[in-house]
Amino acid sequence: LEQQQATKFRNVFLVLHVYEQAQIFIELTKKQRARVYRYLTPEELGATFNAIEEEPERVISYFDEMTPNYAAAVITQMYTDNAVDILAFAEKKNLANYLRLMPREKSDEIKEMLHYEDKTAGSIMATELVKIVGNQTARSGLHVLKKEAKEAETIYYAYVIDDDEKLIGVVTLRQLLISDDDALIRDIMNDQVKSVKVDEDQEDVAKTIRDYNFLAIPVTDYDNKLIGIITVDDIIDVIDEESAEDYSGLAGVDIEDSPDDPFKAAKKRLPWLVTLLFLGMSTATLISHYEQLVSEASILAVFISSITGTAGNAGTQSLAVAVRKLAYKDDDTKTIMRTIFTEAITGLVIGLVTGLTIFVIVGLWKNNFILGLVIGLAMMCAIIVANLAGSLIPIVMDKLGFDPAVASGPFISTLSDLTSVLIYFNIAGLFLSFITGTGN
Amino acid sequence: LEQQQATKFRNVFLVLHVYEQAQIFIELTKKQRARVYRYLTPEELGATFNAIEEEPERVISYFDEMTPNYAAAVITQMYTDNAVDILAFAEKKNLANYLRLMPREKSDEIKEMLHYEDKTAGSIMATELVKIVGNQTARSGLHVLKKEAKEAETIYYAYVIDDDEKLIGVVTLRQLLISDDDALIRDIMNDQVKSVKVDEDQEDVAKTIRDYNFLAIPVTDYDNKLIGIITVDDIIDVIDEESAEDYSGLAGVDIEDSPDDPFKAAKKRLPWLVTLLFLGMSTATLISHYEQLVSEASILAVFISSITGTAGNAGTQSLAVAVRKLAYKDDDTKTIMRTIFTEAITGLVIGLVTGLTIFVIVGLWKNNFILGLVIGLAMMCAIIVANLAGSLIPIVMDKLGFDPAVASGPFISTLSDLTSVLIYFNIAGLFLSFITGTGN
Repeated sequence: LEQQQATKFRNVFLVLHVYEQAQIFIELTKKQRARVYRYLTPEELGATFNAIEEEPERVISYFDEMTPNYAAAVITQMYTDNAVDILAFAEKKNLANYLRLMPREKSDEIKEMLHYEDKTAGSIMATELVKIVGNQTARSGLHVLKKEAKEAETIYYAYVIDDDEKLIGVVTLRQLLISDDDALIRDIMNDQVKSVKVDEDQEDVAKTIRDYNFLAIPVTDYDNKLIGIITVDDIIDVIDEESAEDYSGLAGVDIEDSPDDPFKAAKKRLPWLVTLLFLGMSTATLISHYEQLVSEASILAVFISSITGTAGNAGTQSLAVAVRKLAYKDDDTKTIMRTIFTEAITGLVIGLVTGLTIFVIVGLWKNNFILGLVIGLAMMCAIIVANLAGSLIPIVMDKLGFDPAVASGPFISTLSDLTSVLIYFNIAGLFLSFITGTGN
Repeated sequence: LEQQQATKFRNVFLVLHVYEQAQIFIELTKKQRARVYRYLTPEELGATFNAIEEEPERVISYFDEMTPNYAAAVITQMYTDNAVDILAFAEKKNLANYLRLMPREKSDEIKEMLHYEDKTAGSIMATELVKIVGNQTARSGLHVLKKEAKEAETIYYAYVIDDDEKLIGVVTLRQLLISDDDALIRDIMNDQVKSVKVDEDQEDVAKTIRDYNFLAIPVTDYDNKLIGIITVDDIIDVIDEESAEDYSGLAGVDIEDSPDDPFKAAKKRLPWLVTLLFLGMSTATLISHYEQLVSEASILAVFISSITGTAGNAGTQSLAVAVRKLAYKDDDTKTIMRTIFTEAITGLVIGLVTGLTIFVIVGLWKNNFILGLVIGLAMMCAIIVANLAGSLIPIVMDKLGFDPAVASGPFISTLSDLTSVLIYFNIAGLFLSFITGTGN
């Protein structure tokens, strides 16, 4: 595709959408990339780099391949939010180098944003936005938009500020177009402008943009000064990321980044599995405690997995519902109390129905209704406990400031194994003479 | 808030964002709603209704409260895609009535869209879009956009069509603004326009919009005729919906719609639990088969839950990874074979490490390394099988045309319980004399 044929490559490459350019770029060999750095200007490659969605470490290694001057120029051309995401992983020495080689204004913006905490509005915002003032006319507002059209991340919203850079309104490009040319911005702007604070959780920002169907939302600091903008495409990434996290939590594996190399994949999954195995050993220890009971009535062993399995499933359902409810941030005390109450009653109903079902099945199958009663009762109690744990654990984790999605599915099932076995053998112990009398 | 005080209500209500209007509207009593229907024009209420995200059945009931003429006028004001989502749930008689009372053009569009299959591009597209032709100037293109600004779902993209209504290009409002006024559309347009077919899966549409960071994408029929547009806010709903479905599948419960009434919640969750309970009974039957073995070596019962639990967790991890990989639609045979191969080797590695761990633990704990060997071997085999099942089942389901996310977590764990127990007792049977000889 490209053997010293710079113009030919440029003709083919530059008509592509930046996403496609990025897809091609990441497939290149080191030698091919070296050529690309010679064939393309930093402006052109900066646009491509905006669309690369690889791990930051890998993008950093591309920068290391370039001359520092070229790298700094490429970074300068990138949107600040994208550049910061990557530079957060650069070596201190290289970072200082790049910052020194780029225009002062850009390096100041990057330095400031490197201080925003991960997963806050500040860390995903761009600083390239369109500001106008209230006593401009629509015509002059449109003029500003045209001028900024190449730089700004979106020109479909222009934010109106007062003399102190404070956010006082918003006009859409649509409004500017349909307004009278001489209308004053302050008269056509929407002064009910929604904004987010710089340290707000990115998940809350996503919720606002989604609910209001915005294309972008302005970011302000604590003086209500306008400092950035978050666009809907950043938010789609956030939604993806958060839903992948929830899903990963429930499965006990990081699905976002599952390597194709089986040894690496195993290395990522083993910590969870081995932790749960050790946790599961406490269940084994507990059963071991009741070994005497099992040897007297081996029939009891038959139903261990039915009880732990069903309680585990019920607990996972309850956990998933609680995690979802918490994600929607209705976390006032009243809602929480109602969630717990609902789950408790739900657990009771489910436990009753499931317990009765297994009572009838076991009773008929083994022709032993006392055994059926033991299994049914144990299953009912185990389900009620698992349901309560499934809703309580994420709520407690949320209160303690952890992500409730981490109280993951495998953890709940393993924990509910333990309580289920405890409940089961204690109930079985009470009825032992009846079971062995007729059963075994 | 509103006792015959129409103007006061209008003053307060109409300055709010439509999302906030919708939030207020759905909290009103029937009596209050009746007043709103008198106070607001159909145009105003139509805008509010675009932002209502309740169940369609409930929105239909609002229409039933209005006079048919008013209802038809409100529906006419709504975006076609939103209106269709709701009208799909209207009674035949009422639907015919509404369609008769609205302008011919709108009712034709709605009728056509009611035929598109659920979850395809056709079912989520809007028909309000801006079309221009290639030999217009930028000035006249801008003029068209201004004229359509009130009607169209987005004016930030204008699609260029030829004489046969076929899609040949796209210009963004940004491009129109920065171009020379007299430049021809055909010269400034991007002719590499991405579009989707009307029957394409909404998930694929979402992927395209997300990857390319589009604000909207055009929809064409099989003659490449331009028939609709899908905007990024529709796509956010799709992404939410699909991720909620995946999550629900893994948990075995519909998290999107978990009622606050515990009896209704129980009713929704019980079918899954009882199905799995019956499936779990086959595990119990299997163990029952080996009851003789257990009564001879009750120590075996101690480790049932460790083995089934760990294999279940490993299977769930493997399932989650496979479902995710399938969602990204790399479903050529080569990728599938590689996924299965990776999971098999991963299972082998995980099985080896976990098996060795439990071998050492059990060996030391029970001072019986033969028992340790049995447990370790059983765990290794059970994990390998669970891992393979976890990746194979969603792939097979996908091939058969089912949503792989339905091959849910609880199903995999219950299935892996069965195979794990089978493997466990068969291995244990081989070593029985050694176990009872030193162990129990």
